[in-house]
Amino acid sequence: MTFTRDELAEKDAQDPLAFTRARFFLPEGIIYLDGNSLGALPFAAIERANRVLKEEWGRSLISSWNDHGWMDLPARVAARIAPLIGAGADEVFVTDSVSVNTFKILSAALQLRTGRRFIVTDKGNFPTDTYIAQGLAAHLGEERAALRFARTDELEAALANGDVAAVLFSHVDYRSARIEDMRRITTLAHAHGALAIWDLSHSAGAIPVDLNGAEADFAVGCGYKFLNGGPGAPAFVFAASRHHKAMRQPLSGWLGHASPFTFSTDYVPADGIRRMAAGTPPVISMSVLDAALTAFDGAPMAALRRKSVALTSLLIELIERRCAGHGLKLASPRDPDERGSHVLFSHLDGYAIVQRLIARGVVGDFRAPDGVRLGVAPLYNRYVDIWDAVAHLADLLATREWDRPEYRARKAVT
Amino acid sequence: MTFTRDELAEKDAQDPLAFTRARFFLPEGIIYLDGNSLGALPFAAIERANRVLKEEWGRSLISSWNDHGWMDLPARVAARIAPLIGAGADEVFVTDSVSVNTFKILSAALQLRTGRRFIVTDKGNFPTDTYIAQGLAAHLGEERAALRFARTDELEAALANGDVAAVLFSHVDYRSARIEDMRRITTLAHAHGALAIWDLSHSAGAIPVDLNGAEADFAVGCGYKFLNGGPGAPAFVFAASRHHKAMRQPLSGWLGHASPFTFSTDYVPADGIRRMAAGTPPVISMSVLDAALTAFDGAPMAALRRKSVALTSLLIELIERRCAGHGLKLASPRDPDERGSHVLFSHLDGYAIVQRLIARGVVGDFRAPDGVRLGVAPLYNRYVDIWDAVAHLADLLATREWDRPEYRARKAVT
Repeated sequence: MTFTRDELAEKDAQDPLAFTRARFFLPEGIIYLDGNSLGALPFAAIERANRVLKEEWGRSLISSWNDHGWMDLPARVAARIAPLIGAGADEVFVTDSVSVNTFKILSAALQLRTGRRFIVTDKGNFPTDTYIAQGLAAHLGEERAALRFARTDELEAALANGDVAAVLFSHVDYRSARIEDMRRITTLAHAHGALAIWDLSHSAGAIPVDLNGAEADFAVGCGYKFLNGGPGAPAFVFAASRHHKAMRQPLSGWLGHASPFTFSTDYVPADGIRRMAAGTPPVISMSVLDAALTAFDGAPMAALRRKSVALTSLLIELIERRCAGHGLKLASPRDPDERGSHVLFSHLDGYAIVQRLIARGVVGDFRAPDGVRLGVAPLYNRYVDIWDAVAHLADLLATREWDRPEYRARKAVT
Repeated sequence: MTFTRDELAEKDAQDPLAFTRARFFLPEGIIYLDGNSLGALPFAAIERANRVLKEEWGRSLISSWNDHGWMDLPARVAARIAPLIGAGADEVFVTDSVSVNTFKILSAALQLRTGRRFIVTDKGNFPTDTYIAQGLAAHLGEERAALRFARTDELEAALANGDVAAVLFSHVDYRSARIEDMRRITTLAHAHGALAIWDLSHSAGAIPVDLNGAEADFAVGCGYKFLNGGPGAPAFVFAASRHHKAMRQPLSGWLGHASPFTFSTDYVPADGIRRMAAGTPPVISMSVLDAALTAFDGAPMAALRRKSVALTSLLIELIERRCAGHGLKLASPRDPDERGSHVLFSHLDGYAIVQRLIARGVVGDFRAPDGVRLGVAPLYNRYVDIWDAVAHLADLLATREWDRPEYRARKAVT
């Protein structure tokens, strides 16, 4: 199936989700294919930030904790995220970062599975998951916590000893975009007495997620990628309600206390998911995330997924047709059912190619060692964006533009 | 020494620090004496938040990590805080919350003092410090970490066994405002082989702090009180440079890695203070804090301290003179050298009195069991504010206004 640019423009005109694009500020001359790393700015975020600063903080000052509901804000934002990930609103809390929340739930899992010391995870995870697991293992000592690396296709063997407390995997791989089978892996973990923990950073808001359908135990996810919460937005943490009574986590700050304003000497965990809280919520950042999530209003995940699949499939098809013979190789699953909302191509000159794309206003990113990563955000990306991005890519590949002496690669941080 | 309101207005007119008040939005009709809980809004924060959203996130998107220096932001904000607390810029990092950072440095202290398992702290600390220490002890198990409660005047006995890894105290007590002698206590801890950890939440930006002068080992502090960084602003963490090489902390997220963008499998801590980082920095909140700190420009801590002492002394003098016989009792040190930048009075009806003060536009807060807490922020509070606040207090005490049936106390969260 091949299209012309006009036909794609017509698809945009017919797109039932076209209305959400107007909710975002998208700079002139930029084709933004990096919403998987930092989501674009929703206009609602600007309005909300100004309200929080001028009206709430500025005018109501300390009384805003009650009068503007700051104290309940983490739970309110959680209630917006919960339906995107197949969770109950009382199973999600918005707080801290993915790293810090991963520490909490790995600790909780080890405590719930006393006597088992292994955390099984994949070397290909986004590094912070592994680093946090390593930090926890070093902290507790190897007799109480240790890592075992395994890919999901090696998991059965890794679980066989009955010494695994939890498995920790990314739902969508940050490089290849491969979707793991959450239900199958969770079931396998449970069959061996282990808990299943999911990092949803590259799936929340990108593909439908059904944590409770899969009977997942814990999860974490990122607020600043497909949820568009802004740079360093607060993260979310999920704990299945069946664990709420027994679970403990060591970052037992005052806002996870059953009664924070009693100022009692001894920590008593709050009932339910709030025991995942630690310190005072970052109200400004969290309000921006709250506003950003309104960009999903009226746009069901199933429809977003259909558009995402159409756009990533179009991207692959156009690249393979128009850039053939120039060394790009698909490094993402070809089957859309196995692919998240970004696409990875490998190329020996991947780094330089990404730099040249960015210089032309097509913003994707590079992932070591050789990955050209292009993300699709169905809330704001259009069919013609894909056409135009590939047109640039084809042109710069045909001329090996990055070899010109004036285009020396710059260092990128993404 | 007694003043009239006119004389105090004249003092404001002569105040060499009067110029900093114009840097803050202060709502009409409010006398804000709660900057010790949530600092007022600096105008620079509004401008900066809009720039970060519209120009940086909005227009430059992902490239802002380089182009707008987001990656270095925590270190830049740290460099603003360092001179306020007597630290080198490379000894401070801005990240996470006080709770999370306390977990990091308590863990680091236990690791630096292997073989010693006790953390000595005061039951009167702000609760999150104690809760976090309890969470850490429960996590590691009592054979590796345990709490011993002692006030600073009981510290020598608490240290005598040689089993204390670290002492953790508030520099300024959140209720009484008593200033602990940081140098004396640190020296005492060191004499017994223990490390000294300080919570600066109620002293940073309020009184001069000299961590290195006292040879303190670690410290944490809050961004949203006297530093005016906004609700839930990022916190800071201090580690003396002599510990940088050996210290480890378990929240070893990717941004504390020596080379975060290599995406290597094994965690290798960054050199220096950056190993205290965990996840991605909350750029919007941190930018607001960065801008807020410019309110200190041209206002040396020594001068701010002189004004703070003048205002808290005036507050005590006026209350004791104009509210005599109505049951208020000073619960803060009378000697200004022992007192931070807030004042606590006890009263049997303290809760109701604070509610009536707030209803009249005089915003302080209540601290259980009977504390009326009034804070002074020398960057924006005036002499006449103190006069006017006490006029309201004297008036409502004289009529026992809170006893009127129409003024039933509301629940406050502060």
